[in-house]
Amino acid sequence: MSNLSQDIISNSGVKIYQDKELYSFNLDTILLYNFAKPAKKGSIVDLCAGNGAIGLSLTAKTKAKIYLVEIQKQLADLAQKGIIENNLSDQVELINDDISNVQEYITHDTIDTIVCNPPYFPIESHKQIKDNPVLAIARHELKTNLSKILYISKVLLKENSHLYMVYRPERMDELIKCLLENKLRPKRIRFVRTSVNKNANLLLVDAVKTVNESSMIVEPDLIMYENNVLTQEAKDILG
Amino acid sequence: MSNLSQDIISNSGVKIYQDKELYSFNLDTILLYNFAKPAKKGSIVDLCAGNGAIGLSLTAKTKAKIYLVEIQKQLADLAQKGIIENNLSDQVELINDDISNVQEYITHDTIDTIVCNPPYFPIESHKQIKDNPVLAIARHELKTNLSKILYISKVLLKENSHLYMVYRPERMDELIKCLLENKLRPKRIRFVRTSVNKNANLLLVDAVKTVNESSMIVEPDLIMYENNVLTQEAKDILG
Repeated sequence: MSNLSQDIISNSGVKIYQDKELYSFNLDTILLYNFAKPAKKGSIVDLCAGNGAIGLSLTAKTKAKIYLVEIQKQLADLAQKGIIENNLSDQVELINDDISNVQEYITHDTIDTIVCNPPYFPIESHKQIKDNPVLAIARHELKTNLSKILYISKVLLKENSHLYMVYRPERMDELIKCLLENKLRPKRIRFVRTSVNKNANLLLVDAVKTVNESSMIVEPDLIMYENNVLTQEAKDILG
Repeated sequence: MSNLSQDIISNSGVKIYQDKELYSFNLDTILLYNFAKPAKKGSIVDLCAGNGAIGLSLTAKTKAKIYLVEIQKQLADLAQKGIIENNLSDQVELINDDISNVQEYITHDTIDTIVCNPPYFPIESHKQIKDNPVLAIARHELKTNLSKILYISKVLLKENSHLYMVYRPERMDELIKCLLENKLRPKRIRFVRTSVNKNANLLLVDAVKTVNESSMIVEPDLIMYENNVLTQEAKDILG
């Protein structure tokens, strides 16, 4: 692995191993890490964990047990290296399997927090996917999809527990529909924009299992740049 | 009607008759008027038209036939006065009836644009409604509800035609679910905030009938105040 590098998210102090030939974590990952409010104890699942960037970094915020679920062997190996090199074997456990099999490892209705940076792009037969195979699976719904992810989230979460997810505004309607179909009620949403006058390019959502009444909060936007300079909040998040 | 007054929205030039003891149009109305892009010809419906503030003002933007649908006699009378005093009898027609009966007046699949400023608040048996009766019906889902409004919108609109609506972010999840259930795909959404650091207090949505693929745009926010002074955009909209 000649392109192996080490990075740290937002001053968490946890080393993340990356291979730029496979897939590197990006802004989405950092934003979701900062948006998520993990349970302080109990159990947390990072679905579609990749190299474990979010799940591993969350050890800086919580003492809860953290499960990383990642289907791709090459990324799971990097996550495992992160567990070992950061001496996190007691707190973090890797599950290198399809999220659809997760109930073989984790009991339903036992999880206090889920974080998920899923593949964003639906598979459209008429478009060719040009990414390398590992990146393609991380970005496109080749091995899982929104509906499966939210179904698994519902199954794993305790009542009144939170799912934190990063997604694309282009698919917000599908996201909200699919959350509600799975008894996950969006409570808080935040849009991310390159600058104040641009359309949103990401959204962060905090959803809760089995809450009946609508009461969404659309928080102030996260604006990354003002006059081509990082805003103070963006600087604080990027560390 | 001792509290009768005349107002004009955003320099449209159209006089709107109000009775402050009943119900006056407010910021929501003005924002929706500015957000809507009415068809230039054909037919338009203003659902839950009230005193006709939006529907009448739209005559400044389009030559299309405009139907105002309002259940409350007192508000419909004000709308009718607006039709007469502005000499709009050839272009604007009042339907003083429940929107559920609208097919008695308008053929399904014939409408090019719908605008709607609906009642926002669900009826909760445990909360007492303190508004006057006319205002209560305008604000609360006493005579109609989101589901009925969106069903009627689907019935009336032609394929690929637009519904423009103003709503509360608190119920965005219900709104999106209900739009999709009625084959109305949200295409464009814009949040309105008092100031940049506040949670959104209104949303404007542009939805299209029978579009299969998700492709939402979350537009730049409309910010009303900066340092307690109206922003330039807010000034332009308020006229």
